[in-house]
Amino acid sequence: MTNMRRIAKEAGVGIATVSRYINNTGYVSDELKKKIEEAIERTNYRPNELARAIFNRNSKIIGLIVPNISNPYFNELALIIEEVVSKAGYSIFLCNTNDELEKEQHYINVLQGHRVAGIITVRSRCKEEYTFLGVPVVSFESVISDEIVTVATDNVKGGKLAFNHLYECGCREIVHVSGPIYSSAITDRCNGFLKEADKKQITIDLLQFDTDFQRKMLESNIRALEDIEKYDGIFVFNDIAAATVIRYCQLKKVKIPEEVQVIGYDNSYIGEFLYPSLTTIEQSVQEVGITLADVVIRLIRGEEVQEQRISIEPRLIKRETTKLQNNSVQGV
Amino acid sequence: MTNMRRIAKEAGVGIATVSRYINNTGYVSDELKKKIEEAIERTNYRPNELARAIFNRNSKIIGLIVPNISNPYFNELALIIEEVVSKAGYSIFLCNTNDELEKEQHYINVLQGHRVAGIITVRSRCKEEYTFLGVPVVSFESVISDEIVTVATDNVKGGKLAFNHLYECGCREIVHVSGPIYSSAITDRCNGFLKEADKKQITIDLLQFDTDFQRKMLESNIRALEDIEKYDGIFVFNDIAAATVIRYCQLKKVKIPEEVQVIGYDNSYIGEFLYPSLTTIEQSVQEVGITLADVVIRLIRGEEVQEQRISIEPRLIKRETTKLQNNSVQGV
Repeated sequence: MTNMRRIAKEAGVGIATVSRYINNTGYVSDELKKKIEEAIERTNYRPNELARAIFNRNSKIIGLIVPNISNPYFNELALIIEEVVSKAGYSIFLCNTNDELEKEQHYINVLQGHRVAGIITVRSRCKEEYTFLGVPVVSFESVISDEIVTVATDNVKGGKLAFNHLYECGCREIVHVSGPIYSSAITDRCNGFLKEADKKQITIDLLQFDTDFQRKMLESNIRALEDIEKYDGIFVFNDIAAATVIRYCQLKKVKIPEEVQVIGYDNSYIGEFLYPSLTTIEQSVQEVGITLADVVIRLIRGEEVQEQRISIEPRLIKRETTKLQNNSVQGV
Repeated sequence: MTNMRRIAKEAGVGIATVSRYINNTGYVSDELKKKIEEAIERTNYRPNELARAIFNRNSKIIGLIVPNISNPYFNELALIIEEVVSKAGYSIFLCNTNDELEKEQHYINVLQGHRVAGIITVRSRCKEEYTFLGVPVVSFESVISDEIVTVATDNVKGGKLAFNHLYECGCREIVHVSGPIYSSAITDRCNGFLKEADKKQITIDLLQFDTDFQRKMLESNIRALEDIEKYDGIFVFNDIAAATVIRYCQLKKVKIPEEVQVIGYDNSYIGEFLYPSLTTIEQSVQEVGITLADVVIRLIRGEEVQEQRISIEPRLIKRETTKLQNNSVQGV
């Protein structure tokens, strides 16, 4: 309200000049620019960056939309992305959608309203909402459109790795706990797993979890595993869900890995804290985070990004929930 | 740049009028206001909310500054706060400081620049940075100034509860793993614990972790626990650090709770996933989150908040890492 007047007074220039400067609506000489900038500095008035962002689409904020910050994989990812973008002078506006489509749409509007420089969206449920934003967008896992760069691990291959490891460890009665079906990454893992099982003529039982992680899962979906004793191998679609499954086995006094072997997916930090520690398929959070941050910064700078689909290699991380000891990559 | 011109053209008014309207720097008749607003609507141009926020301090964003979103307690807290404020029409701009003072200062500037309606700051290291913001601030754990409302559990009492439980479980050779000394909440826990031990004439060994949670902790601080075998009880300053300690005991084949009993602090979700599951002191994340959100919204609305120090009662959650079975509150 009076801020612009105050700056004008402080700088000894007219308010129209300050307005032209802040809103970039006309010529302001270098001399006056300097005076205004110094006045802004002195009055500790900070809207210029933001005001410029409004009209020039040039804020130093990158929006990061994640489905659930409680998933250890997503929160590690957020930390890595922040580390990379902050070195390039950007801050992260972190939005948590709780896996709700409406919340994601809401946050896209909020980010657009705040004129973010770019958006990184993780396991998005939106499509056209991103396509007309006029803001660089990079997607992790979900394919949004032909124009938007998608980074994903090769989830089909990851599912294959998981099956082959359980098979080599001697499992023949296997159940796969899969996750929300709207996620192509999760269905890809499932498909790779089933395909490989089919080659070995092993029939896989399937269980569906409605969510990748919520505390309620402990009390609802997990009951579907009532007859867990009849299996000798379980592949769970991510680590935090695997932690829930392991805890459930322990409550039922089913021994891991002696009676049932378990493999997760992600290689998030929770795997190391579990006892026994979790064998899993790594989708390198470091590599994924750096790639996402790098691509969005390049797009913001107007550089060309050649590949529209960037694939990250999955990798087996052998720990204690499966038996085979040789050929392994040991975690901490 | 051209946006304001475009709106002016669309509305059939002069660019100076649009500027006066957006920047609130002079009189605009109701008739012209309506024309401009309709033009903004038609051009799908969304700066008005933001432009108004700049000059009227009235955005619908609440900044939430946390030291480390990887700490399960802080990420549950973020989810709860978001749930509450979103019902009141606000969104959360989540900032992760990685426990770095400079990063916290930087994010305070960013939030101020984006004219957030209020700030919730968790275990802050800043003081005067918050006092001249002109934005409602609520603090969790850290006392910032007399004017800023602080919400905290009674950490001295929590420390006392932890000692008394270990004592009742038969522990006499006890070590306390404490955390970063800049946190008054953590030193309060320590002091309450030591005070109660003193009453029973038990000497407590002290160990200091530099951080409440980072993966590196696994490789550095933990080595200080080399002679873990000589203790029969450990109180760790939070759950995620307790998870690290438990994992270390397991690697050293020290049995929990048979040989050493462990109690954490927080009651974050990780405690239920551990095996054995973690006995801990709860500082209800639900109660803390709702209180923080409620206070900041009341302050934003200009309502008075009577108490400057709001204390949340801690509570013992008995699980499997300690022995005593009666008088217990069982977790899942």
